[in-house]
Amino acid sequence: SANEIATIMQSANDTLAPDQFALLIEALPQNKRLDVWTTFPTAMQRAAFVDMGQATRGHLITLLSDDECFDLLSQLDVDEVIEIAEEIPSRLLKYAIKCLDDSQRKLYQQAQQFSTDAVGHWLDYNYVRISEKLKVSSAKLLLEKGLAPYTEDFYVVNKDGVLTGILAINRLLQSDNDTRLSALFCPEAPRLKASGELSAAADAVILSGKMSLPIVDENEHFLGRFTVATAYEVKQELQTEQINNAAGLSTDEELFSSVSSSAKNRGIWLGVNLVTAFLASWFIGLFEATLQQVVALAVLMPVVASMGGVSGSQTLTVIVRGLALGQITEQNRKVLLHKELKVSALNGVIWSLVIGSITFLWFDSLVLSLVIAMAILFNLLIAATSGVMIPALLNKLNIDPALSGAVILTTITDIFGFVVFLGLGSLLLL
Amino acid sequence: SANEIATIMQSANDTLAPDQFALLIEALPQNKRLDVWTTFPTAMQRAAFVDMGQATRGHLITLLSDDECFDLLSQLDVDEVIEIAEEIPSRLLKYAIKCLDDSQRKLYQQAQQFSTDAVGHWLDYNYVRISEKLKVSSAKLLLEKGLAPYTEDFYVVNKDGVLTGILAINRLLQSDNDTRLSALFCPEAPRLKASGELSAAADAVILSGKMSLPIVDENEHFLGRFTVATAYEVKQELQTEQINNAAGLSTDEELFSSVSSSAKNRGIWLGVNLVTAFLASWFIGLFEATLQQVVALAVLMPVVASMGGVSGSQTLTVIVRGLALGQITEQNRKVLLHKELKVSALNGVIWSLVIGSITFLWFDSLVLSLVIAMAILFNLLIAATSGVMIPALLNKLNIDPALSGAVILTTITDIFGFVVFLGLGSLLLL
Repeated sequence: SANEIATIMQSANDTLAPDQFALLIEALPQNKRLDVWTTFPTAMQRAAFVDMGQATRGHLITLLSDDECFDLLSQLDVDEVIEIAEEIPSRLLKYAIKCLDDSQRKLYQQAQQFSTDAVGHWLDYNYVRISEKLKVSSAKLLLEKGLAPYTEDFYVVNKDGVLTGILAINRLLQSDNDTRLSALFCPEAPRLKASGELSAAADAVILSGKMSLPIVDENEHFLGRFTVATAYEVKQELQTEQINNAAGLSTDEELFSSVSSSAKNRGIWLGVNLVTAFLASWFIGLFEATLQQVVALAVLMPVVASMGGVSGSQTLTVIVRGLALGQITEQNRKVLLHKELKVSALNGVIWSLVIGSITFLWFDSLVLSLVIAMAILFNLLIAATSGVMIPALLNKLNIDPALSGAVILTTITDIFGFVVFLGLGSLLLL
Repeated sequence: SANEIATIMQSANDTLAPDQFALLIEALPQNKRLDVWTTFPTAMQRAAFVDMGQATRGHLITLLSDDECFDLLSQLDVDEVIEIAEEIPSRLLKYAIKCLDDSQRKLYQQAQQFSTDAVGHWLDYNYVRISEKLKVSSAKLLLEKGLAPYTEDFYVVNKDGVLTGILAINRLLQSDNDTRLSALFCPEAPRLKASGELSAAADAVILSGKMSLPIVDENEHFLGRFTVATAYEVKQELQTEQINNAAGLSTDEELFSSVSSSAKNRGIWLGVNLVTAFLASWFIGLFEATLQQVVALAVLMPVVASMGGVSGSQTLTVIVRGLALGQITEQNRKVLLHKELKVSALNGVIWSLVIGSITFLWFDSLVLSLVIAMAILFNLLIAATSGVMIPALLNKLNIDPALSGAVILTTITDIFGFVVFLGLGSLLLL
């Protein structure tokens, strides 16, 4: 019951991190969330409100009064406001922005100049930016105050705010207190442009082996930094998106999203799938006369379709990952296609022999075995070709192959499989 | 050609990180790899040899002489030897271990005491461990030498090697040079047990907001640390595994894995799929007489099967993620099942009306429309039930639901869909 859950929750109160509290609220049926939510202290609620998924937060907003929501949003950092800006009603967003101090509000506006696909939108402002006119002693004072996580460097700027170098913190410790920072050797800082694409920037930070990289605008002005933690979060979100897309779920579907929003999200995908399923049916319908005379063909159709679908998805998965890692070029695509065709030919020969034999034992017809064996072999070759070529094509059209590749592929393998199988059947069995 | 590629590579030589070089080698057809490999300097080769995928490394080992391989392995850190230990032939592993110095070899042996599923196997030894008997001045000297990445704390140990506290580096800067570390207040360090499960440890580090957590053995002896970078890598590898498993690929399949190993990996999955496909065919075969009289049923079979499969995978994906996040309990599973059944009922009613109408327009038979509409509705409800219950069942049997859940689910929706559709057809249409 709700009370029991609340008791368990309360005892967990001390040991829970806000992310975990957010996950717990998401895991509760909608009608029990408010009971549990109110047993936790305000500080925990405030942190979890930012951490939780969009659908759960949206549901919570409908349960709470506006004043309660305002309170949850009254002490956010600019990073947090940017994180949830697209996901809360505009009256709440306005209030959250109003609660920021002037310098933070300026950073918020800076972030809005970049699209959500650009790294400039997602900067971390807990950096240590320091003027090159200062002395080493001032920098050491900053150090003693304590640093934000993921800080191993100071970012040195000139009077115009242009990034002139990076100063590793342990180098600072070896320097004389009276030295001006401009007199220290600061190596040219590796930097990323704020307009750059988010996932490319994430790759760059992870590859750099540094805990964060500085981000600059077109005129080399220092804007903020991008940490390795954010970089990994971005990569992980992209992978989760890929898993969701493969199943036709929207990115914000959660365990207890409302029935109506879940049904809508998933219904759209079912509709797309229905079009391709009826297309396959239409092609089968062309062979009605044949099916009526050789019912065994109808019985065996699922075998032809599913072998093609599985084999094609295997190729597709390998190719989509290769594209994501930037490993696929015009030069090696042809070689890849040859390799995939060889793999499919090898599996095609082996499994069409197996399938042909089972069919012979079942239906006692040599011609039928021949028909299904040839259809399987042919369908696996079509599957390999589609698995290599569809993502390339979608990429050229700027469509994410992880999203729609699988539907297109199985439509093709279904239709080709049925047409070849039933077509050969019509030719050889009637 | 290989020469062109080599020229491009060579010009990229300066700007490439070793990870990128490894990805490039993986992206080359097998017969061109050696040409490109040899144009790069030894230092780059050594780093990339550790970074590259298992299949590519294995292929490279067959191309190089043992002496060349020995050279690549002669300057590894203990972390690197541990990383590739399971993936290289034992004569090479022996050599790599021989090249470690005594203290590193001891760390290697320490790692081998833990299974590869335990966090103790994957520790980072670039920590800063410091005896509580030392003075602040000694700690500051260490600091000036430069710290390993992801270091924000010193781990303080007593004379027995037991972890007694953590010392934040910025706190150190505020302390008097003559103070003994044992006299400084070191907060009780949050710590993880080395025998703990790897992915749980990764979650703990990420949730902690710290750059690394210290790892101790059963007797609280400090063994090493686990950094947030490793934690994110572990999480990402698990997700990649999940994507691969869903397509029936083995984890080590790469773009240019050899034809024979690709064919073998994927062939096994095709075989499993074949069993389930023939099972579905067998159930269809039970209705041969019906199919012969009402061919329209054969034509429409793919619609029933694919709607059930898609809907079931959607539920399955939501549930598998919920399980991975620890959000699914005995208490909320029943509520989840109700929710998923409601979503399926809603979509079932809508789409069975659509499908029924299309069927009526196509085949001009009210009874046939009724049969397919009922079959669709029923199959979506079966799909929702299976999507919730199968992962729970597999979890209880200690089988990863991400691996085999999808096959079992589509087998069930296929068979139930066909039986209901053809069964109703037999009852109402003959």
